[in-house]
Amino acid sequence: MAAGLFKNNIRKLHQVVGNAVTFGRYILFGEGSTQLLNAAVHALSSNHNHSSPPSVVLASVPYYPLYESQTVLFESKDFKFERNISLWKNNSDGRTNLIEFVTSPNNPDGQLNKAVLQGPNAKAIYDRVYYWPHFTAVPAPADDDIMLFSISKLTGHAGSRFGWAVIKDEALFERMKTYVSLNTMGVSRDAQLRALKLINVVFQGRRGREIFEFGHTIMRKRWEKLNRTFSVSTRFSVQKIASQYCNFFHRVREPSPAYAWLKCEREEDKDCYGVLKAANIISRKGSLFGAESRYVRLSLLRTQDDFDLLLQRLNKLVLEEDNIKSM
Amino acid sequence: MAAGLFKNNIRKLHQVVGNAVTFGRYILFGEGSTQLLNAAVHALSSNHNHSSPPSVVLASVPYYPLYESQTVLFESKDFKFERNISLWKNNSDGRTNLIEFVTSPNNPDGQLNKAVLQGPNAKAIYDRVYYWPHFTAVPAPADDDIMLFSISKLTGHAGSRFGWAVIKDEALFERMKTYVSLNTMGVSRDAQLRALKLINVVFQGRRGREIFEFGHTIMRKRWEKLNRTFSVSTRFSVQKIASQYCNFFHRVREPSPAYAWLKCEREEDKDCYGVLKAANIISRKGSLFGAESRYVRLSLLRTQDDFDLLLQRLNKLVLEEDNIKSM
Repeated sequence: MAAGLFKNNIRKLHQVVGNAVTFGRYILFGEGSTQLLNAAVHALSSNHNHSSPPSVVLASVPYYPLYESQTVLFESKDFKFERNISLWKNNSDGRTNLIEFVTSPNNPDGQLNKAVLQGPNAKAIYDRVYYWPHFTAVPAPADDDIMLFSISKLTGHAGSRFGWAVIKDEALFERMKTYVSLNTMGVSRDAQLRALKLINVVFQGRRGREIFEFGHTIMRKRWEKLNRTFSVSTRFSVQKIASQYCNFFHRVREPSPAYAWLKCEREEDKDCYGVLKAANIISRKGSLFGAESRYVRLSLLRTQDDFDLLLQRLNKLVLEEDNIKSM
Repeated sequence: MAAGLFKNNIRKLHQVVGNAVTFGRYILFGEGSTQLLNAAVHALSSNHNHSSPPSVVLASVPYYPLYESQTVLFESKDFKFERNISLWKNNSDGRTNLIEFVTSPNNPDGQLNKAVLQGPNAKAIYDRVYYWPHFTAVPAPADDDIMLFSISKLTGHAGSRFGWAVIKDEALFERMKTYVSLNTMGVSRDAQLRALKLINVVFQGRRGREIFEFGHTIMRKRWEKLNRTFSVSTRFSVQKIASQYCNFFHRVREPSPAYAWLKCEREEDKDCYGVLKAANIISRKGSLFGAESRYVRLSLLRTQDDFDLLLQRLNKLVLEEDNIKSM
């Protein structure tokens, strides 16, 4: 009963924000979206009989590293991870179930990705944890078969380990519920209570307007500063994100992604992580995201002091570029 | 650092109670002991190469049902559950890794079980969640390679989902840590905070004496009443548990188990669950514990009202026995 009321609060929040269709959908709690990722893989692949080949789990590059590390660690007779999604585009053998992780907006590059695998054997797990107005324009409510959200990316309380899945199909919901039940016997009630309180606080700020306006302003400014830094660089570039109409803000809004997806453009800078490391900047290696090592991810989700320091070091690095020195 | 202090509190508690050797051991948090069960299976089986046969996971009957349901659901190339442990006693093929769940005291029958599988290929996961003075005599500190505990069975806060593993081997600890990390990205900090406070409260009551004396008294009385009820029955019997010297209470203490393992003795009462159900008594079927269906488990962990009602209905059932009517 308490869980039912909480689920209705979550539905109300999605309705106010306009980022997901949740009425008439099943909601399942998880220990962060992390637990729900493998619960979904498990549920989508457990249906088929053991004589079929295992379901193949895939994601377009660049993808969130945990999809690979988690799926590989928990590999079963029913599913396995493969790195090369392009082999399966328009090329399904008709027998193998395909499970695609779609992060939208994407971690690391903030793009509003859509599933690339189509056909009756292809299923998508939409990781929607960044689909909130502080990180992205919300052009329309998402209505995917499986959508994942988390308190971590909504209010920042990653340590509470609380996420939820929005699921269309009842049988799939039941299988995911069994997974969570046998994995951890449900979700910590302490974490649930914390998340319930947090969502109530989000509502109190002018029905979410306060936190999302605050979050968007902070993240937009960081993105602008970062772009200004790289605008004079030929050595480094970051992804382009277009301004877009947002149904929550009722206007075209400027980009404000959680991460910068940085590319080292020089032929010799194959190890972009090393290039930044030498300048005392910690990034995450592109290879973790299935990409070339001339890419890295920089997190813009940090304290202001920490961000200012990052920007200062990046500015220094850019100003040292030969072409700029000689300008 | 905070986690380190918390771990030292846990070590201090085990030392005061005298139920486990934890100094010089690794401690890993989990979302209840539930998560740590499969983490241990995973870690114990992930070491061997894929050309070997999968590790076989076993438990002596009667065993806690989750060992089977969880291991079957998460079955991988590396491990599988088998029901018949006796096939493997003194009969190891020398190639197959054996992983034995040992619950001590046992759920459902409260016995201080020891591993029955021996030899270099046999590993045991000791589920010690009931090894506290309210449920059992503590003859000596346990010093098993892997021991699991939980706040659920220590203070009753099952909903917090907080457990811990005490592990001797560093490499095994690291593999279990990776499992928890990729499964749920660690344990909810809200649950950790709750558990930390609970353990501090346990200490406040005369270094644990208060809660364990209270718990033992309540559970002992329930066990005595139940035994009195069945002492006049030929239709039903419950397990025998001997009084034993307890290092915590410094005296021989009377039994006070968490569950009664009830047997329907009459030839025709093959469905013991059904016999009790007809008398409005809810039990758990013996078949779930790998046992004959003439066994059931009755939980003594319930509110006093609920226990009194259970006892009243059991008394009625026993008094209806033909032999008693005719006495």
